[in-house]
Amino acid sequence: MSDKKNMKLFSLNSNPEIAQKIADHARVPLGKISSRQFSDGEIQVNIEESVRGYDIYIIQSTSFPVNNHLMELLIMVDACQRASANTVNVVMPYFGYARQDRTAAPREPITAKLVANMLVKAGVDRVVTLDLHAVQVQGFFDIAVDNLFTIPLFAEHYINKGLTGPDVVVVSPKNSGVKRARSLAEYLDAPIAIIDYEQDDANRDYGYIIGDVKDKKAILIDDILNTGKTFSEAAKIVEREGATEIYAVSSHGLFVKGAVELLDQAPIKEILVTDSVAPNGPTPKNINYLTASELIAEAIVRIQERKPVSPLFAYHKK
Amino acid sequence: MSDKKNMKLFSLNSNPEIAQKIADHARVPLGKISSRQFSDGEIQVNIEESVRGYDIYIIQSTSFPVNNHLMELLIMVDACQRASANTVNVVMPYFGYARQDRTAAPREPITAKLVANMLVKAGVDRVVTLDLHAVQVQGFFDIAVDNLFTIPLFAEHYINKGLTGPDVVVVSPKNSGVKRARSLAEYLDAPIAIIDYEQDDANRDYGYIIGDVKDKKAILIDDILNTGKTFSEAAKIVEREGATEIYAVSSHGLFVKGAVELLDQAPIKEILVTDSVAPNGPTPKNINYLTASELIAEAIVRIQERKPVSPLFAYHKK
Amino acid sequence: MSDKKNMKLFSLNSNPEIAQKIADHARVPLGKISSRQFSDGEIQVNIEESVRGYDIYIIQSTSFPVNNHLMELLIMVDACQRASANTVNVVMPYFGYARQDRTAAPREPITAKLVANMLVKAGVDRVVTLDLHAVQVQGFFDIAVDNLFTIPLFAEHYINKGLTGPDVVVVSPKNSGVKRARSLAEYLDAPIAIIDYEQDDANRDYGYIIGDVKDKKAILIDDILNTGKTFSEAAKIVEREGATEIYAVSSHGLFVKGAVELLDQAPIKEILVTDSVAPNGPTPKNINYLTASELIAEAIVRIQERKPVSPLFAYHKK
Amino acid sequence: MSDKKNMKLFSLNSNPEIAQKIADHARVPLGKISSRQFSDGEIQVNIEESVRGYDIYIIQSTSFPVNNHLMELLIMVDACQRASANTVNVVMPYFGYARQDRTAAPREPITAKLVANMLVKAGVDRVVTLDLHAVQVQGFFDIAVDNLFTIPLFAEHYINKGLTGPDVVVVSPKNSGVKRARSLAEYLDAPIAIIDYEQDDANRDYGYIIGDVKDKKAILIDDILNTGKTFSEAAKIVEREGATEIYAVSSHGLFVKGAVELLDQAPIKEILVTDSVAPNGPTPKNINYLTASELIAEAIVRIQERKPVSPLFAYHKK
Amino acid sequence: MSDKKNMKLFSLNSNPEIAQKIADHARVPLGKISSRQFSDGEIQVNIEESVRGYDIYIIQSTSFPVNNHLMELLIMVDACQRASANTVNVVMPYFGYARQDRTAAPREPITAKLVANMLVKAGVDRVVTLDLHAVQVQGFFDIAVDNLFTIPLFAEHYINKGLTGPDVVVVSPKNSGVKRARSLAEYLDAPIAIIDYEQDDANRDYGYIIGDVKDKKAILIDDILNTGKTFSEAAKIVEREGATEIYAVSSHGLFVKGAVELLDQAPIKEILVTDSVAPNGPTPKNINYLTASELIAEAIVRIQERKPVSPLFAYHKK
Amino acid sequence: MSDKKNMKLFSLNSNPEIAQKIADHARVPLGKISSRQFSDGEIQVNIEESVRGYDIYIIQSTSFPVNNHLMELLIMVDACQRASANTVNVVMPYFGYARQDRTAAPREPITAKLVANMLVKAGVDRVVTLDLHAVQVQGFFDIAVDNLFTIPLFAEHYINKGLTGPDVVVVSPKNSGVKRARSLAEYLDAPIAIIDYEQDDANRDYGYIIGDVKDKKAILIDDILNTGKTFSEAAKIVEREGATEIYAVSSHGLFVKGAVELLDQAPIKEILVTDSVAPNGPTPKNINYLTASELIAEAIVRIQERKPVSPLFAYHKK
Repeated sequence: MSDKKNMKLFSLNSNPEIAQKIADHARVPLGKISSRQFSDGEIQVNIEESVRGYDIYIIQSTSFPVNNHLMELLIMVDACQRASANTVNVVMPYFGYARQDRTAAPREPITAKLVANMLVKAGVDRVVTLDLHAVQVQGFFDIAVDNLFTIPLFAEHYINKGLTGPDVVVVSPKNSGVKRARSLAEYLDAPIAIIDYEQDDANRDYGYIIGDVKDKKAILIDDILNTGKTFSEAAKIVEREGATEIYAVSSHGLFVKGAVELLDQAPIKEILVTDSVAPNGPTPKNINYLTASELIAEAIVRIQERKPVSPLFAYHKK
Repeated sequence: MSDKKNMKLFSLNSNPEIAQKIADHARVPLGKISSRQFSDGEIQVNIEESVRGYDIYIIQSTSFPVNNHLMELLIMVDACQRASANTVNVVMPYFGYARQDRTAAPREPITAKLVANMLVKAGVDRVVTLDLHAVQVQGFFDIAVDNLFTIPLFAEHYINKGLTGPDVVVVSPKNSGVKRARSLAEYLDAPIAIIDYEQDDANRDYGYIIGDVKDKKAILIDDILNTGKTFSEAAKIVEREGATEIYAVSSHGLFVKGAVELLDQAPIKEILVTDSVAPNGPTPKNINYLTASELIAEAIVRIQERKPVSPLFAYHKK
Repeated sequence: MSDKKNMKLFSLNSNPEIAQKIADHARVPLGKISSRQFSDGEIQVNIEESVRGYDIYIIQSTSFPVNNHLMELLIMVDACQRASANTVNVVMPYFGYARQDRTAAPREPITAKLVANMLVKAGVDRVVTLDLHAVQVQGFFDIAVDNLFTIPLFAEHYINKGLTGPDVVVVSPKNSGVKRARSLAEYLDAPIAIIDYEQDDANRDYGYIIGDVKDKKAILIDDILNTGKTFSEAAKIVEREGATEIYAVSSHGLFVKGAVELLDQAPIKEILVTDSVAPNGPTPKNINYLTASELIAEAIVRIQERKPVSPLFAYHKK
Repeated sequence: MSDKKNMKLFSLNSNPEIAQKIADHARVPLGKISSRQFSDGEIQVNIEESVRGYDIYIIQSTSFPVNNHLMELLIMVDACQRASANTVNVVMPYFGYARQDRTAAPREPITAKLVANMLVKAGVDRVVTLDLHAVQVQGFFDIAVDNLFTIPLFAEHYINKGLTGPDVVVVSPKNSGVKRARSLAEYLDAPIAIIDYEQDDANRDYGYIIGDVKDKKAILIDDILNTGKTFSEAAKIVEREGATEIYAVSSHGLFVKGAVELLDQAPIKEILVTDSVAPNGPTPKNINYLTASELIAEAIVRIQERKPVSPLFAYHKK
Repeated sequence: MSDKKNMKLFSLNSNPEIAQKIADHARVPLGKISSRQFSDGEIQVNIEESVRGYDIYIIQSTSFPVNNHLMELLIMVDACQRASANTVNVVMPYFGYARQDRTAAPREPITAKLVANMLVKAGVDRVVTLDLHAVQVQGFFDIAVDNLFTIPLFAEHYINKGLTGPDVVVVSPKNSGVKRARSLAEYLDAPIAIIDYEQDDANRDYGYIIGDVKDKKAILIDDILNTGKTFSEAAKIVEREGATEIYAVSSHGLFVKGAVELLDQAPIKEILVTDSVAPNGPTPKNINYLTASELIAEAIVRIQERKPVSPLFAYHKK
Repeated sequence: MSDKKNMKLFSLNSNPEIAQKIADHARVPLGKISSRQFSDGEIQVNIEESVRGYDIYIIQSTSFPVNNHLMELLIMVDACQRASANTVNVVMPYFGYARQDRTAAPREPITAKLVANMLVKAGVDRVVTLDLHAVQVQGFFDIAVDNLFTIPLFAEHYINKGLTGPDVVVVSPKNSGVKRARSLAEYLDAPIAIIDYEQDDANRDYGYIIGDVKDKKAILIDDILNTGKTFSEAAKIVEREGATEIYAVSSHGLFVKGAVELLDQAPIKEILVTDSVAPNGPTPKNINYLTASELIAEAIVRIQERKPVSPLFAYHKK
C-alpha cells in the first residue's frame, strides 16, 4: 500500500522549475500557495489548501537571495506546523550557508549550524538535500537528513561520453575536495590529481599541480561553482601542464556576478551542473544542466512510502 | 559600583546612526566589527575585538530589507555566543514582522513568534525594543523583554508646542489602535476619536469618524507608518469633519515606496516619528525626527548596572 | 474513512454539562475517569479505561476555582502522556488567566504565557479554545491552537430577533474591545460606538460615549463578563444617551460575587453568554445561555478526521 | 567576602510565619510584594521593589490549598524571571504532591514530576526543601535540590529529653518508612520496630507489630502527618503490645479535617512536628512545634555565600 | 487489526539469549544488525535492514560491562533515529545504575537520572523494564516507562512448590526492601520479617532480625543479587534464629566476582533469579533461572498493538 | 584582577599525567576526587571538596576504554552540576568517537554528535579540545568549543631540527588529510604530497603517491595514530619513491594492539605525538612525546581570566 495519498508538495519561490519537475516525476501535483513580499520586505505566506494531517514536502533552494529564501522557508514551516501538518519535510536542493561550517578564525559564527537550528526550531521533521558541502553538516541536525549524491549522475554522463580509463584524470581544483575527485575517479577508472596553493610571500597563492595530467582529458570537480575563479585558475594550470581537454563539473551552479565572464574565457570544454539552483542571470556559453529532479523525486516518494533511500546512493554501471 | 566596564556595544548595518547616538549617550564606544554580504547573498560577520566574558549589546532594527537585517542579527548572536560572551542582549528599536502576531486567516503563520523563537534559539538573553506593535509579543518570549514607550517622548513634544486641552483631539486612524490614542490623550488632557471602516459591498472600506473633531486640532497616532495610506485617508476624513490643524505621529517611520507622495499630498502639518528606522529613501517634506537614542541609552545602562528600568516608562510633567 | 474510532473524550470537573453536550453532538461517549480532591487539597486523577494509542480530548474550562481546574487539567495530561496516548488535545471553552497577557506594570508576570508553557511542558499536543481574550495568545504556543469564534453564534441570534440595520448600534463598553464590536456590527449591518473613560483627577474614570446611540437599540459586547461592572456602567451611559433598548453579550459568563446584583439593576433587556463556564452560583434574571457545544463538537470531529476547521470560522447568512 | 548583599527574600502566602523567622535568622529583610486572589480565583502578584540582578529566594510551602499555593509560586517565579532576577531559588519547607512519585496503578500520573517540570519550566534555578517524602524526587530535577534533613533536629529534642538507649524503640508506623526510623534510632542508640498491615479478606488491613516494644518508650516516626490515622492506629497497637510511653514525630503536620479528633483520642504523649506547614485550623492538644527556620536560614545563607551545605546534614552530639 | 507487521526487534550484545526467547514468544524475528568494538574501544553499529517507518524495539540489559552496553544502546538509538524509525523503544530487562537514584552524600551524582536523560536525548520514545530498583525512577523520565513486575512470576513458582501459608515467612534481608517482601507475602498468605543492621561502634553492622522466623520456611527476597553478601549474611541470621529451610529470590542476578563462593557456602536451598542478566561467569550450584521473556514478549506485543499492559501486572491464582 | 581564585581543576582516570602537568603549568592544584569502578562495572564518583560556585575544569581524554572514560566524565559533570558549580568546563585532550562524524553508509549513527549531545545534556558549559578529527565537530555543539591546534607545536619541533625548505616534503598518508599537511608545510616552507589509494578489483587498495618525494626528507602527518597501518604503508611507499629520511607525526597516539610491531618494522626515523593519550601498553621504540600541557594550561587560564584564546592558535617564528 502506498502512502502517496497523504503527501503534499509545495514550491516556494527560489526554484519553481525544479519543483515542477520533481512534482512531475513524483506524480504528485504542487499544492496551492501564495507567498509574496511586501514593500517593507516582509514575506507573507498563505497556504491555500488544507494541510491538516498531511505529510508536507516544501521545495526550496536557499540560494541567492539566501536570506529571503531562508526566511520564506522558515515562515512556511511555521505555517504548516500551526496548521497541523502531520510532518514537515524540507527539500533543499541547494543548502545555503553550508560553507560556514566551522570557526575558521576567532569569534566566527558557525552559520550552517545556526541555519540547522532555525529549521529544527521552526518545526522541520526531516531535510532532504543534495551534495552537502561537508557531510558533517548532517550531524548539525538530530533529525533525519537525507543527503543525496550527485556523483553517480555525473559519472553516468561522462561514461556515456566515453570519458573513462587511464586517459582521463579527475582533478580536485583545491586541496580540500579530494574525496569528491576520488569518488568520481572510481566510477571512471581514472587517476586523480590535485591543485595545491602555496602561500608564499613573494608569489602569494601560486597554484601548482600534484599528480599527472599531461596528455590526459582532465575533469575538474568541485561542489559549488560560485565566482568561477577556482575553475578558471585550475583550468589554466591544467592546460599549462599539458591536459588535452578540460571539463568542469559542480553540483551547484551559483554563477554570481563576474563568474560568466571568467568562465567564458577559461579553456573549459563543458561546464556541467545540476539544476539545484535556478539561474538568476546569464550562464556560461558551454553550460550543461543535468536535472537532479528525478533523483529527488524518487527519494521523496521512497521516504513517503517508507522504503529505504539507500539504493539511490550509487550509480550501477550497466 | 558600575558594571559599565563589562559592557560592549556593537552596531550592525540597519541603523548605524541611532547606534552611534546610543553609544554617545551611554558613553560606551561602539565595538569593532565587520559584517559584509558576499555576491551570493550570504552574510559574514567578523567580530574584531574580544567579547569573551563581556555583556554584549547588539543594536539592529529589523527594518527593510528585513530578512537580511534579521539574519545578520542572528549570525552576530551566534558568533557572540560561540565566542563566550557573558550575555547577549539585542536592542531592536524597530522589531520587524511584529504585525504578524496571530493567525488572522486559516493556515497563516505567526511570524512574530517565529522571529522570537529564532532569536532565543540563537542565544539571545534579553531584548530591548521600542513600542511593540502589540504588547502581547513580550509573551512570545520567556526571556526578559524591555519594551520602551514612545508616548512620553511624543507627549513632551506636543506639550512644548502647546497642543493640550479640550481644543485638541487625539485620533486613532483605525479601530485597533485606541489604547495608544487614549494614552497620549491623557498626557495632553484631550479627548479621543476613532476612524472606523465599514465593510459594505457597494462602498467598500468607507471610513467615518466616531467622536468629535470639529474645530479642534487633531493628532493622528499610529505605531507604524508604512505606506502612508492610513494617515493620508484619516487626514482627509478629519479635515472633512472640520478639524482645524492636523498632526500625525508614529513610532516607526518605514516610508515604503509611494508613501512620500501620498503623505506630501495629505493635509498634515507635521509628521513626527522616532529615528528607530533609518531612512533608506526620500522622506515627507514635513517630517520631524525625534531621537529615541537617549531613552534607549539610558535603558541599557540601567539594565547593565542592574537598576530598575521602570522610571523610564513615564513622562513626568514638570 | 473516519478516524473517530481512535478518539476518546474525557470531561474533568469544571464544566461537565458542556462536556456531555459536546460528547452528544460529536456522537462519542465520555470516557470513564475519576478525579477527586483529598482533604489536603491534592488532586488525584484515575483514568479508568485504556488510552494507549488513542487521540485524547480533555474538556476543561479553567474557570473558578481556576488553580484547581488548571492543576486537574495538567495532572490529567501527565497521566495520558505516561499512559501512552497517541495525542493529547485539550478543549478549553474558557481559558483562565488569558487577561494576564502582558507586563502592564514593571515586574509583572505574564501568567497567560506561564499557563501556555505549563500545558505544553505537561504534554499537550493541541489546544481548542473559544474566543481568546487576545488572539495573540495563540502565539504563546508553538503547537496548534484552534481559537473558535463566538461572534457568528451571536450574530445568528440577533438576526433571528430582527436586530439588524441602522436602528441598531453595537457598542464596545471599553476602548480596548473595538474589534469585537466591529465584527458583530458587520454581521448586523450596524454602526458601532465606543465607551471611553477619561482619567481625570477630580472625576476619576468618568465614562462617555464616542459615536451615536440615540434612538437606537444598543448591543453591548465584551468577551468576559466577570464582575458585571463594565456592562452595568455602559448600560447606564447608553441609556442616558438615548438608546431605546439595551442588550449585552459576552462569550464567557463568570458572574463572580456581586455581579448578579449589579446586572439585575442595570437597564439591560437580555444578557447573552455561551455555556463555556458552568454557573457556580446565581445568574442574572434576564440571562440567556447559548450553547457553544455544537460548534466545539464539530471542530474536534473535524480535527480528528483531519478536515479543515476553517469553515466553522464564519456564520453564513442564509 | 559575603554575597548576602545580592540576596533578596520574599514570602508568599502559605507560611508567612516561617518566612519571617527565616528572614530573622538570615538577617535579610523580607522584600515587599503584594499577591492577591481576585473573585474569579486568579492570582495576581506584584513585586514592589526591584529584583533586577538579585538572587531571589521565594519562601512558599505548597500545603493546603496546594493548587493555589503552587500557582502563586509559579506566577512569582515567572515575574522574577521576566524582571531579570539573577537567579530564582525556591524554598519549599513542605513540597506538596511529593507522595505522587510513581505510577502505583495503571494510567496514574506522576504528579511530583509534573510539579518539578512546572517549577523548572517557569524558571527556577534551585530548590531548597525539607525532608522530601522520597529522596528520589531530587532526581526529578536536573537543577540543584538541597533536601535538608529534620532527623538531627528531632534527635536533639529527644536526647535533651533523655529518650535514648535500649529502653527506647523507634517505630515505623508502616512498612515503607523504615529508613527514617533507622536513622533516628542511630542517633538515639535505640532499636527499631515496624508496624505491618496484612491484607486479609475477613480482617482487612489488620496491623501487627514486627519487633519488640514491650516495656519500652516508643517513638513513632513518619514524614507527613495528614489524617492522623497512621499514628492513631500505630499508637493503639504499640500500647496493646506493652509500650510504656508513646511519642510521635513527623516532619510535616498537615492536620486535615478530623485529624485533631483522632489524635486527641490516641495514647500519644507528645506530637512533634516542624513549622514547615502553618496551621490552618485547630491542632492537637499535645502538639509541639519545632522550628526549622534556623536550619533553613543557615542553608540559604551558605548557598548564597557559596559555602558547602553539607555540614548542616548531621546533628553532632555534644 | 494487528500492528505487529510494523514492529522490528533487535538484540544488542548484552543478553542475546533473552532477546531470542522474547522474539520467539512474540513471534517476531530478530532483525539483522552488526555491532562490534574496535581495538580502541569504540563501538560501531550497523543496522543491516531498513528501519524507516518501523516501530523498533531494542533489547539490551545494561549489565556488566555496563558502560559498554549503555553506549552500544545509545549508539543504536541514534542510528535508528537518523534512519527514520517511526518510534524507538528500548527493552531493558536490567536497568544498570538504577541504585544511584539520589544524592546519598554531598556532591554525589544521580547517575540513574543521567542515564534517563541520555536515553531520552538520544531519541528513545519508550522504556520497558523489569522490577526497577526504585519505582520512582519512572519519574526520571517524561516518556512512558513500563516497569514489569517479577513478583507474580516468583509467587507462581513458590505456590507450585507448596510454599504458602503461616509456615512460610518472607524476609527482607535489609530494612529498605520491605515493600517487595510485603508484596510476595500477600501472594503466599505468609507473614514477613526484616533483617536490620545496627551501626554500633564496637560491633559495626551487626545484623539482627525483626519478626519471627522460628520453625518456618524463610524466603529471602531482594531485587539485585550482586556480591551475594546480603543473602549470605541474611541466611546465616535466619538459620541461627531457627528457620527450617531457606530460599532466596532476586529479580536480577549479577553474580560479580566472589559471589558464587559466598553463596555456595550459605545455607540456601534454592536461589531463584530471572534471566534479565546473562551469566558472564560461573553461577551458584543451586541456581534456578526463571525466564522473564514470555512476560516481556507479551508486554511489547500489547504495547505495539495498543492494548493495555495492566493485565500483566498481577498473577491471578487459579 | 585575576579570576583564577574561582577555578578548580579535577583529573579523572584516563590521563592523570597530562592533568598533573596542566595543573603545574596553570599553577592551580588538582582538586580531590575519588572515582572508582565497582565489580559490576558501575562507576561512582565522589568529589571530596566543595565545588559550589566554582568554575570547574575536568580533564579527561576519552581514549581507550572510551566508554568507561566517557561515562566517568558524564557522571562527574552531573555531580558538579548538582553540587552547584558555577560553570562546568571539560578539557578533552583526545575526543573519542570523533571519526564517527557522518553517516558514511545507510543507517549509520553519527556517534560524535551523540557524544556532543550527551555532554551538553549532562550540563557541560564549554569544551576545550586538541586537534579535532574534523573541525565541523565544533558545530555539533551550541556551546563554546575551543579547539587548540597542534601544528604550531610540531612546526617548532621540526624547525628546531632544521627540517625546513624545499628538501623537505610534508606527506598526507591518505587523501582526506591534505589540509593538515598543507598547514604544516607552510610553517616549514616545504611542498606537500599525497598518498592516494586506488580501489581496483585485482589490486585492491594499491597505494601510490601524488607529488614528488624523491631525494627529500618526508614528514608523514595524520591526526590519529591508531593501528599504525596508515603510517606503516605510507612509509614504505615514500621509501620506495626515493625519500631519504622519513618522519611521522600525529596529534593523538592510541597505539592499539599490533601497532607497535607494525611501526617498529616501518622505515620511520621518529614518531612524534602529543601526550593527549596516556600510553596503556608498549610504545614504538622511536617514539617522541611532545607535551600539549603547556598549551592547554595557557588556554584554560586565559578562558578563566576572560582573555582571548586566539593568540594560542599560531606558532610565531622567532
